Amino acid sequence: MRIGIVAPSCRIDEDVVSRVSALAEGRAELVWHLQCFLSDGHFAGPDSARAEALIEVANDATIDAVWFARGGYGACRIVDRVIDALGPAARDKTYLGYSDPGTLLGALYARGIGRVAHGPMPADIRRDGGETAVVRALDWLVDGSPASLEPSLGEAPAAAFNIVILAHLIGTGHLPDLVGHVLMIEEVAEYLYRTDRDLAQIVQHPSIRAAAGLRMGRISHVPDNDPDFGAQPEAVVRDWCARAGIPFLGSADIGHDADNKVVPFG
Amino acid sequence: MRIGIVAPSCRIDEDVVSRVSALAEGRAELVWHLQCFLSDGHFAGPDSARAEALIEVANDATIDAVWFARGGYGACRIVDRVIDALGPAARDKTYLGYSDPGTLLGALYARGIGRVAHGPMPADIRRDGGETAVVRALDWLVDGSPASLEPSLGEAPAAAFNIVILAHLIGTGHLPDLVGHVLMIEEVAEYLYRTDRDLAQIVQHPSIRAAAGLRMGRISHVPDNDPDFGAQPEAVVRDWCARAGIPFLGSADIGHDADNKVVPFG
Repeated sequence: MRIGIVAPSCRIDEDVVSRVSALAEGRAELVWHLQCFLSDGHFAGPDSARAEALIEVANDATIDAVWFARGGYGACRIVDRVIDALGPAARDKTYLGYSDPGTLLGALYARGIGRVAHGPMPADIRRDGGETAVVRALDWLVDGSPASLEPSLGEAPAAAFNIVILAHLIGTGHLPDLVGHVLMIEEVAEYLYRTDRDLAQIVQHPSIRAAAGLRMGRISHVPDNDPDFGAQPEAVVRDWCARAGIPFLGSADIGHDADNKVVPFG
Repeated sequence: MRIGIVAPSCRIDEDVVSRVSALAEGRAELVWHLQCFLSDGHFAGPDSARAEALIEVANDATIDAVWFARGGYGACRIVDRVIDALGPAARDKTYLGYSDPGTLLGALYARGIGRVAHGPMPADIRRDGGETAVVRALDWLVDGSPASLEPSLGEAPAAAFNIVILAHLIGTGHLPDLVGHVLMIEEVAEYLYRTDRDLAQIVQHPSIRAAAGLRMGRISHVPDNDPDFGAQPEAVVRDWCARAGIPFLGSADIGHDADNKVVPFG
């Protein structure tokens, strides 16, 4: 199996390559696109380089899966250009990542391109216990291992997003139809008032109001607010679900951490 | 003239009352709703208290204008409840504020309720030179002074928003139709990558793509990014305008500062 790795948001360092490649040894051929190491201000190279790298790898029929290298910020700057340039080979492919690349996962799923999944990325190797996250991703990419999957996944179609990324898909052409889906959400390092504001926008969307329900992943590393926000993350999520009439289905085993499980869309 | 003051977001302190009331002495009667001084976690009282105070003042035929006391966060939590409860007296009224209460200005303008304007609030008294901002607001509220107005205002209808607030109106029922408008935007204390992400969402909206053009107010107190974002605020705004085919019309004299001018919507 050949797995192409590109960085639509921020760059990675060489240590990620050596450590992740060692874990993939004998299981899969990892094809690290050189774009992953470019640097242009905030980004892993200019928009054009990030877009072209992703288009090249997605349209390469010798590559079986596209693995997004890491998050950060930048996917929304290239999504229009990428999505319109994908050919037949891009449809017969798996795409895996989360956080900022969720913009691309949403757009791919909205167009019905490929098999899309929310799950660990190569840069997760740097987390505490990051090897387990990377091996979990490889187990799923290479063997389709059920042990890699978010455990609540069942008969209803599912989708998973970082909350701020999902909020920024609202009202754009890249938000997939989430009617009837179990929608899983997670967040990291955002003030709770911001997550509250994002949820206010998210739950107003008609297709999200018609979701089968919502599951809450980890909302972690919330900065202290002054004054204190006055509610805990789960109460915030439950409140917006109740206001919008969306069933709150409990927790989801996803988040910006090494325990982050794989959620295939659909 | 009677001006009702409510706080749909965060609370104010008593010093704001005494200092602003002194400036209004002999010009207007300021009616400070006690809700302004409530405290509930992040907010100036619970959602119900903030919503009911605004509804009460807006529906009071003896009040000529509603002046939002300050920003912060919270208006989007009450906008649905407020907007559906406004009666005939609310239509014959002026509404003034900016920042977080921009959610309410947008919703009011979307429904054609009252005369809506983006401009200084009582809490601006605490800024350096804040008296000039408050007097500018009073000059406009009491006398309709043209000197208070943003100087580029001309024949095209206008609207003004804080960028993150406008981004969170996208895809909701409270975004007004901005076709043919000069849209003025401003921001404070946001990382530039976040403003970039907000603009990506904003310029995708069809009615904003059909705006007469966009003017950039101050984008101030931008925190340092690591790595540096790689572009200045004006370049970011110009880039998104160019991508979306929205004319960039230059600067607007608005922002989170004492120079913030009044922009009546429409």
